[in-house]
Amino acid sequence: MSFSERPQASLMSNPRADRVRDVARLAGRSARLKREHFLAEGPQAVREALVAHRDRVARGEEGLVTEVYASQACLDRHPEIAEAAARVTTRLATDEVLAAMADTVNPQGIVAVCRFVHRPLAEVLDAGPRLLAVLCQVRDPGNAGTVLRAADAAGADAVIYSSSSVDIYNPKAVRSTAGSLFHLPVVTGVDVAELAAECAARGIGILAADGYGSLDLDELQDASAARRLGVAPSESDDGAAAASYDLARPTAWFFGNEAQGLSAEEIALADHRVAVPVYGSAESLNLGTAATVCVYASARAQRR
Amino acid sequence: MSFSERPQASLMSNPRADRVRDVARLAGRSARLKREHFLAEGPQAVREALVAHRDRVARGEEGLVTEVYASQACLDRHPEIAEAAARVTTRLATDEVLAAMADTVNPQGIVAVCRFVHRPLAEVLDAGPRLLAVLCQVRDPGNAGTVLRAADAAGADAVIYSSSSVDIYNPKAVRSTAGSLFHLPVVTGVDVAELAAECAARGIGILAADGYGSLDLDELQDASAARRLGVAPSESDDGAAAASYDLARPTAWFFGNEAQGLSAEEIALADHRVAVPVYGSAESLNLGTAATVCVYASARAQRR
Repeated sequence: MSFSERPQASLMSNPRADRVRDVARLAGRSARLKREHFLAEGPQAVREALVAHRDRVARGEEGLVTEVYASQACLDRHPEIAEAAARVTTRLATDEVLAAMADTVNPQGIVAVCRFVHRPLAEVLDAGPRLLAVLCQVRDPGNAGTVLRAADAAGADAVIYSSSSVDIYNPKAVRSTAGSLFHLPVVTGVDVAELAAECAARGIGILAADGYGSLDLDELQDASAARRLGVAPSESDDGAAAASYDLARPTAWFFGNEAQGLSAEEIALADHRVAVPVYGSAESLNLGTAATVCVYASARAQRR
Repeated sequence: MSFSERPQASLMSNPRADRVRDVARLAGRSARLKREHFLAEGPQAVREALVAHRDRVARGEEGLVTEVYASQACLDRHPEIAEAAARVTTRLATDEVLAAMADTVNPQGIVAVCRFVHRPLAEVLDAGPRLLAVLCQVRDPGNAGTVLRAADAAGADAVIYSSSSVDIYNPKAVRSTAGSLFHLPVVTGVDVAELAAECAARGIGILAADGYGSLDLDELQDASAARRLGVAPSESDDGAAAASYDLARPTAWFFGNEAQGLSAEEIALADHRVAVPVYGSAESLNLGTAATVCVYASARAQRR
């Protein structure tokens, strides 16, 4: 359905209006799936959505943002958002209406209804990616979003969610991406066995992030630094093992469920199991931080 | 006050009992400050608290855990916890009582009342630390805990919270540490200017993690790798600047507020401002992930 059939300039002030309820329903997965739209909340997310919208339209593609609802105060505070929002249907609303629409108690004066952004897996793989973050059965929306943000920062080419992962359009997941959801291609509902076969066929190595992995990420990084500097890698056993995988290769990192980690089946799909070393007494790193260390290690090796 | 005046073997089944309310009040800061106790929830946190308790008692120090409340089912599921809990006052309670005591909806069958664990700053500095994580005006309990967990994993010697940071004994902060709160010294309420003076006097360098920093963490890491491998560092301008700070030095990392970053005053206390490079379109990394990359970079340089 389209939200923009009747653009109106009047201030929306009734938090129980049908349109407000329609927007609020996007907090639920079934409404999102039915409409193929989701909600971006707050100035940062809406700004990034509008930038992505403009870029898409400039390429002759369908727009991304179908409607913006904002308070006058928010538009006054963020003139660059007001200017960008003028390109799409924007309606002024009271803070009460915005709070009723949003999943957060305080959406900071602005929400946007957006079309789904995920892309087909084939499109992402055909673009020749060098760095992919693959989330297998990740359940926590905050983790799903945090890893996407970190992958974006590390310059990953795409983030891929397995078929049983949390919905990336969940409001908390969208918030956790801090706008990165609109920056790089996202693929959802992927069968990781099929993905692994595609990676193998294209020369993309698969590394499983696994606290019990025999390869140590620091050893991989040391071998990579030695390679860059034209020095022979360490001759220790660990160094020799690490020398067997070049971090500068095109790589897909597999990250597992926050409680159970990767399953035996998922690990079996990888070329190597790699552990982020734990030097202190921590039992493990949380998913977001472990994934960050891994994708940054690849980014450094690939870019330097 | 002591929670263990009347140890009883009977099952606690009244969620409105005074003792239950007393424990539940520890979710609030004022009750915590008054009693100098806080609550650890769930098997992982309670297990780590009991290990730390045992180690303290073995050193002749005051115990850490004053009381454990658990369901029989939880103790049956975790015999190692049941064994350790036998050393302190442990009371059986129904799930309803445990839910009423805990901040989480589901405390997974066990909570422990613990004495405050923070240590004096002088004690931490006198131990000759090589790696410190300093959180300045951090407000989100989840971030405060996540950075502590990451610092523990990286083998940091202590985590220091500035005077205006969130309370580390907040239940969400405790949960986010995943037990690491009981692994390494924590210092709270620190004046960062005083800390900086102490660091300078002891030869501990201060690096400010700052997205606008002129020093790039990757350059620092490259210079460090070159040094380890006996190769001259890169002669680029960046490389020369990076060569001016050896990551293997004893270092205190300053991390700022999640929204505003470090203040101008906090940055002025540091020897260098260091940015985690952002290769993609992300505006920034979140605090937990940026801090992880920084402390791991130091840990690698110091340990290899």
